[in-house]
Amino acid sequence: MNQVGEPQAQRYKLTIAYDGAAFHGWQRQTQPDGNDLRTVQQVIEQALMRLCGQPIHLVGASRTDAGVHAKGQVAHFDAVCRVPSENLAHALRSRVPKDVDIIDAAIAPGSFHAIRDARRKQYRYTIHNSRHRPLWLRHRVMHFWEPLDAALMNDAGARLVGTHDFEGFAAAGHGRNNTVRTIFDCHAERNGDAVTIVVEGDGFLWNMVRIIGGTLVEVGRGHLPPEVIDKVLASCNRADAGPTLPAEGLCLEWIQYD
Amino acid sequence: MNQVGEPQAQRYKLTIAYDGAAFHGWQRQTQPDGNDLRTVQQVIEQALMRLCGQPIHLVGASRTDAGVHAKGQVAHFDAVCRVPSENLAHALRSRVPKDVDIIDAAIAPGSFHAIRDARRKQYRYTIHNSRHRPLWLRHRVMHFWEPLDAALMNDAGARLVGTHDFEGFAAAGHGRNNTVRTIFDCHAERNGDAVTIVVEGDGFLWNMVRIIGGTLVEVGRGHLPPEVIDKVLASCNRADAGPTLPAEGLCLEWIQYD
Repeated sequence: MNQVGEPQAQRYKLTIAYDGAAFHGWQRQTQPDGNDLRTVQQVIEQALMRLCGQPIHLVGASRTDAGVHAKGQVAHFDAVCRVPSENLAHALRSRVPKDVDIIDAAIAPGSFHAIRDARRKQYRYTIHNSRHRPLWLRHRVMHFWEPLDAALMNDAGARLVGTHDFEGFAAAGHGRNNTVRTIFDCHAERNGDAVTIVVEGDGFLWNMVRIIGGTLVEVGRGHLPPEVIDKVLASCNRADAGPTLPAEGLCLEWIQYD
Repeated sequence: MNQVGEPQAQRYKLTIAYDGAAFHGWQRQTQPDGNDLRTVQQVIEQALMRLCGQPIHLVGASRTDAGVHAKGQVAHFDAVCRVPSENLAHALRSRVPKDVDIIDAAIAPGSFHAIRDARRKQYRYTIHNSRHRPLWLRHRVMHFWEPLDAALMNDAGARLVGTHDFEGFAAAGHGRNNTVRTIFDCHAERNGDAVTIVVEGDGFLWNMVRIIGGTLVEVGRGHLPPEVIDKVLASCNRADAGPTLPAEGLCLEWIQYD
């Protein structure tokens, strides 16, 4: 039993945005020499330690790769924190580097778990489809100059919707026993020079969105028919799918909880 | 007289965009050790030399400072260039770093001069006016969290229009004998969190747009009245004006020629 007045640790939920260009991804990576690579988890944990005066372990919902961006990453942590929760986002924001933004910080139920309780995630992949390369958005889009047929890509994307074994769309070494996932929505659309691929699912395997993107690009340029999706879902063979698109065009848009 | 078939040098006009964040400004700067700092002029001259096989001297219309961006910088050069002019922009674009874009390259009359013939230039200064700092646009806007009254700033800006001695709005060491310039338009407007200051003139002194911006910000936050503009125009005293705004919010939008 706690003594009267002794502060109790509370669980907090963070909603985080970041420009992934200068990060080695989300997850903390300690090098053999003991130094940490610059990761989003590491810079936020460091800020939390300065704020709360104790080492904090942050559990992020999605382990985004190096170069991948986020507008709505979610993470939880436990801490005894003297900062009132309504001031926490602001206090934390001013302690993280400028390529990270703390959208929201709130007290969560003690049972809340950023990974386990996530129900639906949206990723968005943006392709600058023009002979003219992008200047201002160059760190946030993939440049692809061959004309893409977004309608064909959309047709291919629709074939992913449902509950399937996505092993064929996962990078080798994904380390998951269960490769069955549910895709709620996958569509592609063109807006001027921008072709966007939106994928919503209950979870994603390693590189899954980037391999789906690479397969849709092969369809869009006419190198593969939309039916290639059915083939990969049946064969579960990575070699039947398209290449992995570069990280910089990808953004984790949001994560939905119950 | 030229021998028959000997190629003659031609004058070319370039229209150039760049993200100024990673440049030490437009103008070539050779260090005492003989090395060049990374400047826009230097990377384009280097690309031109590879393309034309001869050293090229580029004359830029505006010597933008370190960190300042451009959507429509103009420059001229003379060269014997085997690349047909309709392919020149593309050939050059693929030889410059990704933070530079060659919008257009064309043969110009031999008398064309990027500096001397410029009639009107537009600069735009963008302020992210919110307590919440900017994430995606952080290299392209100034963050100012105190509320700004854009209408007051607009009132102040209008007082700059006309032909005046702008000595009071120039950084010390501007090195110009004639500090009289004509401002055709200066206005400020708000669009959500963005406050934009647009200035059009026949030419600008060193840091002039950033000092105009800093004076308008002092007006917008209520520290100076709009009439401060009249005072600085009358006194020609830099100390009467506001501070110099940081470079990253500034962009050279376009330059007009006859």
